[in-house]
Amino acid sequence: MEFNPKKRFFSFIRALQNEICKALESFEPRAKFIEDSWKREAGGGGWSRVLTGQVFEKAGVNVSEVHGPVPEILKSTIPESAKEFYATGISLVIHPTNPMIPTTHANFRYFEVVDKAGRIVDQWFGGGADLTPYYLFDEDATHFHRTLKQACDNHHNDFYSEFKPWCDRYFFNRHRSEHRGIGGVFYDHLRPDEKLVGAALEAFQQEIASSFIQAYIPIVENRQSLDYSAAQKKWQEIRRGRYVEFNLIHDRGTLFGLKTGGRIESIFMSLPPTVRWEYNHCPQNGTAEAKLIQALTTPKNWT
Amino acid sequence: MEFNPKKRFFSFIRALQNEICKALESFEPRAKFIEDSWKREAGGGGWSRVLTGQVFEKAGVNVSEVHGPVPEILKSTIPESAKEFYATGISLVIHPTNPMIPTTHANFRYFEVVDKAGRIVDQWFGGGADLTPYYLFDEDATHFHRTLKQACDNHHNDFYSEFKPWCDRYFFNRHRSEHRGIGGVFYDHLRPDEKLVGAALEAFQQEIASSFIQAYIPIVENRQSLDYSAAQKKWQEIRRGRYVEFNLIHDRGTLFGLKTGGRIESIFMSLPPTVRWEYNHCPQNGTAEAKLIQALTTPKNWT
Repeated sequence: MEFNPKKRFFSFIRALQNEICKALESFEPRAKFIEDSWKREAGGGGWSRVLTGQVFEKAGVNVSEVHGPVPEILKSTIPESAKEFYATGISLVIHPTNPMIPTTHANFRYFEVVDKAGRIVDQWFGGGADLTPYYLFDEDATHFHRTLKQACDNHHNDFYSEFKPWCDRYFFNRHRSEHRGIGGVFYDHLRPDEKLVGAALEAFQQEIASSFIQAYIPIVENRQSLDYSAAQKKWQEIRRGRYVEFNLIHDRGTLFGLKTGGRIESIFMSLPPTVRWEYNHCPQNGTAEAKLIQALTTPKNWT
Repeated sequence: MEFNPKKRFFSFIRALQNEICKALESFEPRAKFIEDSWKREAGGGGWSRVLTGQVFEKAGVNVSEVHGPVPEILKSTIPESAKEFYATGISLVIHPTNPMIPTTHANFRYFEVVDKAGRIVDQWFGGGADLTPYYLFDEDATHFHRTLKQACDNHHNDFYSEFKPWCDRYFFNRHRSEHRGIGGVFYDHLRPDEKLVGAALEAFQQEIASSFIQAYIPIVENRQSLDYSAAQKKWQEIRRGRYVEFNLIHDRGTLFGLKTGGRIESIFMSLPPTVRWEYNHCPQNGTAEAKLIQALTTPKNWT
């Protein structure tokens, strides 16, 4: 029987978008998310939500649902019989004001291609969530990873042990030999019936996406009232520069969006609000900043 | 007779580096350029000079001279017999503090490839200079273009009319359908004996490079004492975001540096010191900010 989760998954991520936005708004005395909906010329569109607040200097939570002729950039990776594609996903990036709270990114998507008769010829889930601290609290990294691992373990024993190193490999600034953050999970082309049958795979996809809130929100609660200095804010802005470098130079998701006519302002919602590039900035040995760099150079086991 | 300008051109740009740094330092009450020299693993190295000042928030003036086996990224564009390459150039980016002073970039380079017997099998000059204002003063754009045009016209009647549109085409943020700035000149693969014999071409290359000082410094003199507001500074930082987008997504020079083992901190010296990304920022009709956007959308004839 054909596995056809697209409507269910789309409804699920729209509801999750509400839930995540509500959880983030609960920290803000006044700020609310603003939604812009947009249409894609070649088919589909999206709902971009952005909040500019006190705790969250910039938070973006997007849902998009796009379809149409298979774009050039995809052709080499899918069956030749594919004529049309459909993709829906939720994508979020949260840039907190306080450098003691880490930045986080998550993305959960469903993708399918159909032949000219409308039959599904390939379909998969992809996703991930990762954490980018400016100051490293080991217990935050552990909590984040353990929460994601639990969601994985509930469905397949191999998932966390495959998706954790995949995340480390993916979010890597090759040009600096440095990882973007302390990782999380990342996976792509998870096809039904390879490791799990369709419905069981869909259940995993929903649970890992839902677990993001549990993985991140407690960290915000624990760190939001910590004091920080102007120098620590500056360090955050310098590190945000590395975030920009990754997203603009290496990120396939950003490139995919730019090449397939995605909405620029929604794609670039991931970029931090204020950023610095200082020539040859190097933290001194033994500082908290140097400890972070150490963790970004050598991924470790956090569970 | 073989045309062999590499030693002369290298000496010329080292002297020009001194001259440009001196001209910039003359605006600064205290700040001086600091030089870092670096070695490239596969051959050669460079001299990076950076100034962090009052008038110039960040200015970088680099000279590099690199050589070695032909890198992969170049192979498709040069003769198959090429075994080793040699490249030397001066590259500068100046980010002024005051948003009334435009950012500028210039680069002048010589490139050659030799076969296994050490014979030159291809060689060319490339270069360019361009202006990126935050507030557009028509007379500054005109002065900049006229100065470069004069340097071109002194050598070949076609040069400015070819290199000006080339610059407009090159410094273009395709993903935003917007030019990076108001242009200048840009050219590449200018081979001896195509439009000018070697020595005459070299004379052009020296004059256009030298003319940069005359093209830019008077603009700084005229604008440095203008007042500006916090909102105008913010606008500058938002526009600097577009500069980052161009350099990291589209610039072949940056890509070439990253792929051929250039020094990261020297390559990224071009990135502005403080930058902002605001979601969906759009200047209001009729403002000076909207006038700038208009000029960046439709290149015009400034001479």
